[in-house]
Amino acid sequence: MKDLKVNEERLWSRLMKMAQIGATPKGGVCRVALTDEDKDGRDLFVQWCESAGLKIYIDEMGNIFGRRDGRFNDLPPVLSGSHLDSQPTGGKFDGVYGVLAALEVIETLNDNDIITDAPLEIVSWTNEEGARFTPAMIASGVFAGIFDLDYAYSRTDKEGLTIGDELKRIGYAGEKPAKAESYKAAFEAHIEQGPILENEKKQIGIVTGVQGARWYHLTILGRDAHAGTTPMEARQDPVKVAASLLSQAYALADEYLPDIRLTFGDLRPSPGVVNTVPGKLVITVDIRHPVDEILDEFEEKLNKIVQAHGAKLDNFWKSPAIVFHPDCISTVEQAVANTDTSAKHMISGAGHDAVYLSRVALTSMIFIPCKDGLSHNELESAKKEDASAGASVLLQAMLIASKK
Amino acid sequence: MKDLKVNEERLWSRLMKMAQIGATPKGGVCRVALTDEDKDGRDLFVQWCESAGLKIYIDEMGNIFGRRDGRFNDLPPVLSGSHLDSQPTGGKFDGVYGVLAALEVIETLNDNDIITDAPLEIVSWTNEEGARFTPAMIASGVFAGIFDLDYAYSRTDKEGLTIGDELKRIGYAGEKPAKAESYKAAFEAHIEQGPILENEKKQIGIVTGVQGARWYHLTILGRDAHAGTTPMEARQDPVKVAASLLSQAYALADEYLPDIRLTFGDLRPSPGVVNTVPGKLVITVDIRHPVDEILDEFEEKLNKIVQAHGAKLDNFWKSPAIVFHPDCISTVEQAVANTDTSAKHMISGAGHDAVYLSRVALTSMIFIPCKDGLSHNELESAKKEDASAGASVLLQAMLIASKK
Repeated sequence: MKDLKVNEERLWSRLMKMAQIGATPKGGVCRVALTDEDKDGRDLFVQWCESAGLKIYIDEMGNIFGRRDGRFNDLPPVLSGSHLDSQPTGGKFDGVYGVLAALEVIETLNDNDIITDAPLEIVSWTNEEGARFTPAMIASGVFAGIFDLDYAYSRTDKEGLTIGDELKRIGYAGEKPAKAESYKAAFEAHIEQGPILENEKKQIGIVTGVQGARWYHLTILGRDAHAGTTPMEARQDPVKVAASLLSQAYALADEYLPDIRLTFGDLRPSPGVVNTVPGKLVITVDIRHPVDEILDEFEEKLNKIVQAHGAKLDNFWKSPAIVFHPDCISTVEQAVANTDTSAKHMISGAGHDAVYLSRVALTSMIFIPCKDGLSHNELESAKKEDASAGASVLLQAMLIASKK
Repeated sequence: MKDLKVNEERLWSRLMKMAQIGATPKGGVCRVALTDEDKDGRDLFVQWCESAGLKIYIDEMGNIFGRRDGRFNDLPPVLSGSHLDSQPTGGKFDGVYGVLAALEVIETLNDNDIITDAPLEIVSWTNEEGARFTPAMIASGVFAGIFDLDYAYSRTDKEGLTIGDELKRIGYAGEKPAKAESYKAAFEAHIEQGPILENEKKQIGIVTGVQGARWYHLTILGRDAHAGTTPMEARQDPVKVAASLLSQAYALADEYLPDIRLTFGDLRPSPGVVNTVPGKLVITVDIRHPVDEILDEFEEKLNKIVQAHGAKLDNFWKSPAIVFHPDCISTVEQAVANTDTSAKHMISGAGHDAVYLSRVALTSMIFIPCKDGLSHNELESAKKEDASAGASVLLQAMLIASKK
């Protein structure tokens, strides 16, 4: 079975079909967690799973599992999957690729009448992106015991709608407990979302770990005042404070190049109208680095800048740097050898459901290149042959890991 | 009638009663244009007008007029009023004061059985604030022939609702043409919204003009990118550009102190999520100065900074500096003398409906102090005795102006 490869055309046509759900005019996807579009994407995935003969289970967090029995069903299964939700201006591949690559593994085994020793399970996790409901990766987090179910159900979007209510509304509040059982191994295939594989002309990233990430609210208080009548000297203008504070923060990041990541993704002034000096400005901060100790140091220096500006930095999410399990990494190395693809070892810049999964299962990841390293962008793009190569590596890895 | 004064308690109790509609926990008011709260405020005002014997007319823009006949009804009327709508985090006095001061003039004349030569009209203008629908002062603008009715009806709020539809929804789309007729004179009483009268311990501002104001959208384009995987050097981050651009803009404003006003009231990143570098950042810009030529110069220099950052500045509203009519100013001076209040001549820092009204009628304004110069703020505050003094000056001015 060393030469077994997936069906490139089928995988690609399903990627393109799924991309029609929530398609945006610029060629991207808006299929944000627990919206009507997310429901439509889930329904299509479930339909494909059923026609591939998988048994479907929906858990309390709306995670969708499809199970294929093995020869020895008392063995713990090998798990693979990713997520179907997207950023508001997301692309066709982020998440979806890992879900449909796992499905393609199943289809290829079906085509070749191969029964694995251990059973296989494929999965689509709810709300990986965290674009509508923070924190990100909340459903794999509940699954891995990081978050309580009640906490997750009560998370709200900007309109005040909760995950719990929205899961019910779209019909994906399942009954299976959202709690990890025993797994033989777990793999997640994903686009790299960065420029490294493309630049180095490698088809596969053997992912050895994930950089640490921390999210904060940066709050700058001012005083609401009339834009026409309040002299400049009499103002407490949080935007003026932000201009200086952010400039210093970017300069701090320059000291930690090339590995630091510093992002101010959202800025919300209150009341946010043209002719009032805002009384408050809240800015989200995302910092990442492969080494937790350097993140500690960066956070401390950033906090000094923030405090020197009379502002406040509140952490609301933290994901420690992760090192994947050597056995799973070596399984992926062997799978790469079986498929004769070019590969390199690398650290993931992004968080993934595999981060939480790695707490409860031997886990690693498989990356494929994406054009210009672009992701969380409607122009996100990947090559058909790379998608197929990654899925074939996943197939080989699952075959190896499922052996008794 | 030189000693005639308004009823301080009645005026104050009505100000406090109106402030209960849309009252906020911090003591302010949220009675944004064409909301349910705005409707409630209008209904209360109309009820008071009717019980004061005024004839009510609603025009196509929802402006509410109350008319009191004079001895010679072929004379053009003397007009006074302001607006009942507020900022989202507004105060109890901005606008409301001028409407209820005008009503108090009518009540005082009724109490004293005084019939003026010319008829009197009082008015509440729709959407002065521009907080929900831009531009500000749109309804007095239509009235003065500055904007087309169709343009005004089609203005949308953040949710895409239009002024036309919202006027109908709250029952204030009237039939009277929104078009100025002939007026003998027009006066608007208002809180100063700045600190000058309070600092100089004067009770009345004799307003000789209004500073010029211009609104822009500042658009900074970037490239949507994943916050974890995109190296800092590979980013096009509009927030980083903004930090530098805004710092330079504030420094430019420092060169034009004390008369310049520069405000960045709203910042909207797209998509505006924690883990994506925004692809676009749009910032509103409000600049004001008493001299149009200096505004021209400031705009030109600001535009150079904007262009040097690869960004774009689009003007979407402009209000030229206004000089009020000498006859009306002298009428207010005489009214001040009649009431024996302390006063100073001043320029208005804020735009007002009187700006547009001055294009079609002899116009001026009467200011009273507000605490700490605060306005567009829930803590906005004015003294009972100042409110009453301003209304008595308005009463005297209307008596003088209405003489045959």
